[in-house]
Amino acid sequence: MSQFEDDDAAEAAFYQAFENCDIKAMELIWARDDVICIHPGSSALVGHDVVMQSWSNILLNAQQPQLQYDVIRRTSNQNLAIHVVKELISPAEFPLESAMIFATNVYVRDHDNGWLLYAHHASATRQKFEKHTLQ
Amino acid sequence: MSQFEDDDAAEAAFYQAFENCDIKAMELIWARDDVICIHPGSSALVGHDVVMQSWSNILLNAQQPQLQYDVIRRTSNQNLAIHVVKELISPAEFPLESAMIFATNVYVRDHDNGWLLYAHHASATRQKFEKHTLQ
Repeated sequence: MSQFEDDDAAEAAFYQAFENCDIKAMELIWARDDVICIHPGSSALVGHDVVMQSWSNILLNAQQPQLQYDVIRRTSNQNLAIHVVKELISPAEFPLESAMIFATNVYVRDHDNGWLLYAHHASATRQKFEKHTLQ
Repeated sequence: MSQFEDDDAAEAAFYQAFENCDIKAMELIWARDDVICIHPGSSALVGHDVVMQSWSNILLNAQQPQLQYDVIRRTSNQNLAIHVVKELISPAEFPLESAMIFATNVYVRDHDNGWLLYAHHASATRQKFEKHTLQ
């Protein structure tokens, strides 16, 4: 079991797993049980197994996208952290066509396992697949 | 200043203000300062004034939609609460054409002002404007 000492470490590991299309690493980042994930344009997925299946489908079909992220707002206390993040995802096949995604990531602190991802809600802007930069 | 004694009361007031197209009520529900709001398909708006301007634009142009919501996952502690909510919004003009929206709502507890909305991230499913029910 990975140990993430804070929400930033868990988040860095989440995006690293995404960029590397590494489903085993992705599994270690999520809290157990009642996690929730909303992919862009999709309904809410609830529960660790269902969420992991969705990531497996995404990561096994992706070719290691380039991914940048920037936390634009955050708030936290001793065992909950919320980050609103701007993601810039460039498919390996079309590196100049980036999607700008906004995500709300919620992390929970579990005393045994450190900080883990509890919720990920991502949505695309309508200007999807135009040229974007993070600045 | 309204006093919301818990996150559920703040959420009920938020959706009531939305349904009533009541911008004055909406303003009382949000925390001060660095709030954040992502409307469906849009970029993140940051700061109380910018977020309120967006709601003013929405509510002044809407005709009191019918709105139902259902909390599908929640987690909280003494001063932060996160709800993932399924919204069903039926425009007054087209009551049979509902949009299914998923929202992540983050509430913060301020000792002076009770619970207030800190972040609202909403996204539409791709099946927008089909017939939906909450069940």
